[in-house]
Amino acid sequence: MKSRRKFIQTLSMAGAAATLPLTSYGKQDNSGKMIHQVFFWLKDGEDVQDFKKEASVLGKCKTVKNAYMGTPASTEARDVVDNSYQLACTLFFESLEDQAAYQVDPDHLEFIKRNSDRWKSVKVYDFMI
Amino acid sequence: MKSRRKFIQTLSMAGAAATLPLTSYGKQDNSGKMIHQVFFWLKDGEDVQDFKKEASVLGKCKTVKNAYMGTPASTEARDVVDNSYQLACTLFFESLEDQAAYQVDPDHLEFIKRNSDRWKSVKVYDFMI
Repeated sequence: MKSRRKFIQTLSMAGAAATLPLTSYGKQDNSGKMIHQVFFWLKDGEDVQDFKKEASVLGKCKTVKNAYMGTPASTEARDVVDNSYQLACTLFFESLEDQAAYQVDPDHLEFIKRNSDRWKSVKVYDFMI
Repeated sequence: MKSRRKFIQTLSMAGAAATLPLTSYGKQDNSGKMIHQVFFWLKDGEDVQDFKKEASVLGKCKTVKNAYMGTPASTEARDVVDNSYQLACTLFFESLEDQAAYQVDPDHLEFIKRNSDRWKSVKVYDFMI
């Protein structure tokens, strides 16, 4: 518990520093807010719709402010577009601390326990907005 | 113009089909809505804050419903987290057609013309939400 507390404190300090130079649009004051963007590549034969249903619990975790999930769109094929994943999850958090709490949320951990053998890879992008 | 019209029609049909099996949370009816998620890796020596200022025009393009941009967050270092990019842009669109229109929006094209020599790579993920 001690190391976790220290970790949270470190995040808290990072969050405070991060309020200074951020730029965003769509909202006037997003200081400290962030997006946790996750992409899942499922193993061959996995049912995407069923996996999506399982993943819906992620958006209901206590510290998640807003959540969207989706599958690749039929946009124009371009070299820069990666549509090789099966599920995208966009989770909004009010702070770095809220995202850290999400990582140890019992519902999040239960999702991982139930489903981690279904994906072959995961990619995460975390950014302040 | 003919081929563009045909392209838009194709997108329109794809959009109609896409309204069927989509799952989302955070909103009850997101059918047809999508996220256009872009990551920029800038060339060495480029000023991230200046580039971010340039990129802010993207969120003001006519068909963009909502937009967020940000820089990597100080979340816990994990193998699955990619924080090697310099700028992330999350653009919400009401439809595939609106995203297609954005691709040829004069302000978007002007941004590309002014700044395309500043990045070494771009990655895009488009998904229905």
